[in-house]
This record gives sequence, C-alpha cells and structure tokens, in this order.
Amino acid sequence: MPRTRLDTARIRAAQQVIDPVFLDTPLYSCEALAAELGCGVRIKLETANPVRSFKGRGTEWVTSRLAGAVVCASAGNLGQALAWSGRRRGLRVTVVASHLASTYKLDRIRALGATLELVDGDFEAARERAVNISRRDGIRLLEDSLDIETCEGAATIGLELADRADEFDTVLLALGGGALATGVGHVLKELAPGVEVICVQPLGAPALTRSWHERRVVTTDSTDTIADGVAGRFPIPDVLDDLLLVADDAVLVREVSIIAGMRMLLDHAGLVAEPSAALGIAAILENRERFAGRRVATVVCGSNVAMDAYRRWTSEGRVEQRP
Amino acid sequence: MPRTRLDTARIRAAQQVIDPVFLDTPLYSCEALAAELGCGVRIKLETANPVRSFKGRGTEWVTSRLAGAVVCASAGNLGQALAWSGRRRGLRVTVVASHLASTYKLDRIRALGATLELVDGDFEAARERAVNISRRDGIRLLEDSLDIETCEGAATIGLELADRADEFDTVLLALGGGALATGVGHVLKELAPGVEVICVQPLGAPALTRSWHERRVVTTDSTDTIADGVAGRFPIPDVLDDLLLVADDAVLVREVSIIAGMRMLLDHAGLVAEPSAALGIAAILENRERFAGRRVATVVCGSNVAMDAYRRWTSEGRVEQRP
Repeated sequence: MPRTRLDTARIRAAQQVIDPVFLDTPLYSCEALAAELGCGVRIKLETANPVRSFKGRGTEWVTSRLAGAVVCASAGNLGQALAWSGRRRGLRVTVVASHLASTYKLDRIRALGATLELVDGDFEAARERAVNISRRDGIRLLEDSLDIETCEGAATIGLELADRADEFDTVLLALGGGALATGVGHVLKELAPGVEVICVQPLGAPALTRSWHERRVVTTDSTDTIADGVAGRFPIPDVLDDLLLVADDAVLVREVSIIAGMRMLLDHAGLVAEPSAALGIAAILENRERFAGRRVATVVCGSNVAMDAYRRWTSEGRVEQRP
Repeated sequence: MPRTRLDTARIRAAQQVIDPVFLDTPLYSCEALAAELGCGVRIKLETANPVRSFKGRGTEWVTSRLAGAVVCASAGNLGQALAWSGRRRGLRVTVVASHLASTYKLDRIRALGATLELVDGDFEAARERAVNISRRDGIRLLEDSLDIETCEGAATIGLELADRADEFDTVLLALGGGALATGVGHVLKELAPGVEVICVQPLGAPALTRSWHERRVVTTDSTDTIADGVAGRFPIPDVLDDLLLVADDAVLVREVSIIAGMRMLLDHAGLVAEPSAALGIAAILENRERFAGRRVATVVCGSNVAMDAYRRWTSEGRVEQRP
C-alpha cells in the first residue's frame, strides 16, 4: 500500500459528496479502436457531464467544505468545474487564467458566472496571481494537484476503475499537475496492484515526467504544446513524491501523436477529445510494440476544445501518423 | 396508466439482465447548447458503449432468452447490437441489410462476427428477406419494434429518465420503427405522466408520424433522408396502437435541420451524433417558440456514422440554419 498523501477512506467519503452527474462514468471496450491500435482498448469517459471534464469530481468535494469565496488558477477545465460547483453552493468564484488560455474555455468559465481574471504570461503566472488574490482578499486558494481534495476527487475515477480491474492490465493517464495520475494511481496501487500505471505528458511540457525520471523536481523555462490542460513548468514537490510511489512509468509524446490520437478517437470511437485527453492513445501510437496484445484502459479526461482548432487537427486531409 | 403491449414489471426484469455497460447512461445538462437553443437541454447519452447506440439494451434482453441462431433485418445499429450480444452468448447471428445501408455500420456488423446478407432494395426489402431466412432455416426472427423485447430494452432508458423526471418537462425521441418511442413513452406515461413525450421523424421518412396523426397505418413508397436509422416505410399496426397511447405529439423535421442539429451537438456539446440522434435538436430548431424556456431532455441514441459524410455535414463552411 503506497504511503502517499492520499487516503482511500477519504476518497470514498468524497464519492458520497460529489454530485452523481460526475460519477460512475462509462467504461467500455472500443473494438474499432483496438483493431487500429493492436491492443485492447477500454475508454473511461469523463466528458459526458456539465463541464465536459473530470475536474468536477474534485471541485464538488472541495466546495462541499467551503463557504464564502474561492480563487484558483486554471488552464480552463478546473476553472469551469469550480465555477459550476461554486455556483450551486452560492460561493463567489474567481478564476485566474493566462491570456493565452483557450478562448473557448474562458467563455465557458464566464458563462458559469465566475469572475475571470486574465494575466500576462503562462499558467505559472496565473498561479502566482491567484496566490496574491487569495492573500489580498483573505479567501481560500484552490491549488490543483497540491490541494489534496483535487487529488481525492480525481481518485474517485480510480475507485470505479478498480471495481473492474479484471478488464485491463494497463492504465494510461494524462499527466499535468499530477492530481489525476496520483489520485487514480494511489487507488489502483492499493486496490488493484497488478495494473500498470503509465503517465503520459507532451514532449512540449515535460517537467513532471522529467522530474519523475530524475527523482527530483526539474523545471522548464517554457512549454510548447497544444495540450493546454497539462502545460505546467513547475512540478509540486509533494505531488512528485506521490507520483514516485504510484506511477510505474512516465512517457513523453510528440504533438503529431497527440493530434493523431484525437483523430483516432473521433474516427474510430466517435469521441471528441481535447488534446490532453488523447495522450493515452498517443502513447500507444508511439510504441505499438510495447502495448501489442495488452488490455489498455485510458481516461478520456476532457472534451473542451475550440472547434476551429479541433477541425483543423482532425480534418480529412491530414495524414495519419504510422510510427 | 397506458394499456400498451408493454409492462413495467417486465422492463424492470430486463434491467436486471442487460449488461450494465448499456445501463445508467449519462444524463446531464448542457448549458452551452441551452444558450444556443433558448431552452433547457438535458442530454441522455446512449453512444458511450461498445456498439455506440441504445440498441444493446434490447438485444441483451432478447438474447438472454435465446439459444442457437437468430436473424434480423437492420439499418445497421440493431445488427451491430445483436451481433455483440449474440457473440457473447455463443449464438449464430445473421443480419440482413439493404445494399444501400451505411458501409460503416455494415463493416462493424461483420467485425463483430455476424453473417451479413445484403439485399437489393431498401430496409423493407431486408425485412422481407429476414422473414424468409427465418422460415427457411427455422431460426428465431428478431423484428425491431414488433418484438416486445426490443421495446422493453429501449424502455429501460425510460426507467432511468423517470428517476430524474423532476429535471425536465419534455422528452424528444427519435421515431423510426417505434421501439424507442413506445418503450420510453410507456414508462414515462406510467411513472412521470407530467412529462410531454414528443416523437421526431424526418420529413423524408414520415410514415409512422403520418400514421400517428391519422390514427391509421399510412405507408409511403420511398424514403429520402440521411437519417438511415429511422427510414422505414411500413409502420407496424401494433406499434402504432401503442404510440397512439403514449405519444403527446409527433413532428417531422427537414434534412437541413437534422444536419444543423448534428453540427450543434458537435460544436456546443462535443458530441458525435448520427443523423437519427440529432432529430430532437432538429425539432427545437424548427420551432424555437414552442420550446422557449422549457426544460427539454433528448436521447442521443447513436453515433454510428461514416466519418466522410459526417465531416461534410458538420464542416466549418456550412451555414447554420436560423429558422
């Protein structure tokens, strides 16, 4: 049993509090995708809910214990989820985002009634600004992946996977700040230790993956990826410690593979995935031999994508990558 | 309580037998779509399963009581579902389809191990041929919408909707052979009689809708619609009788509205829908005044669509219909 910051009893408690609209999400075999990829593929679909990503699990849990106001930095999905959960509990929600963040995601955050503040610079600049707002206004700061509730919320996906762990031998998880990977990883290592947990990050935003391999925090000066949901530069030491306990591997994938993964999810599974949600398929595309014949589950963690970019990425003319 | 052919106790029994991968599907509010349509929109999503349509509910139920062999006519979705359910129970499945049927759907039926027989003519010709095969080989014929198990399977969607009927006042259902509409309609009229049940069919395949309005079977000489899943010409008298008891209205929509509906589901909900699955949104688009401010639920009943056609229908350049 991994001695991470997470505790499975608390994750079960979270499951009781989270709005059921975010729970018990579909988990099913996609044979058309399997035929293309040469391995069994099970989809854990986290997009069929009011905020189109898994982040509602964490924001439901954290807002159930809050009153007044809360602020977070977000690339877009946490902000939407916090706005949704906060609205139904009468909280004042402020979201800080980079001016470079997906316009589509920012529009959704505003539509959900949150106060949106944009900053120059990237996601790390938004994190700094959110800290300052929290101090200035004396309100709760929600820090994705650092605040244990965000990991516990994501970990409820792990409970659902563990219940059916006989259906797969490998789980592929998008790696950004680390809440999804450490949360799901913790539960699987405790309840289904035979399942291999592999994290996937873009080559263009590799900080946490490099940190995992070097077993120390490695930062980067910039990020360069379309996978906006996972583009951090400063890994959180506590999260890295947990990740070292629960991840069996962490791999980096190229942008062309992320795009091919999105296209395969559309063409062969009929699913719209944002770039971060295609990281698992991208990992299989980059190393078909490794996964050949295995039974792989992957979490399709979000579908919040601007349609103009999405159409470009998945358009007919694009040549599919055959590595 | 409507005196249809259906019985709610049997529908609950079906729920116990159907593979859970087809049950308890997502039901959630989509505010982005609501903002576009001017009414509350709840999605009941029936595409996140191994056959990407709701038909598995009925084929699970019917095959649980079968041994040996079974034959059906199908526009594509029933055939896939029967192949899937039959394969896991060791049944020999034959599917008869029109040579005009969606190539994509036919490929999936073959991939699932069923014997596929193509006939000249349309879906009604396939129905005739399936009857003949059944007689010749002495095997069970599964007739969609006529065989009560197909209605009872679809009706399990109604049980799930009825549990949360406080969330909507209107349900929009695709109307083809009638299994979905009579099944869901029966349950709602019994358990949530305040909910208005509206069926939606393409103007290009209007036989059952015309029959409902005239209270007698009306056939057509041909069909002309991209909604291949609902393109029948010969309504089944027993099904019409049930539909007369459970439907509050039946409306016809134009092809341009079906296409606009598919595009809106993609752009504002991130969902791939086949034409039949966009009929509900099409109905709202054709009569915004009728639905303004109401809380509408619609069943997104399938996503099996050939991607070349789908890309054409939902491509960027297309002008959205503003009726």
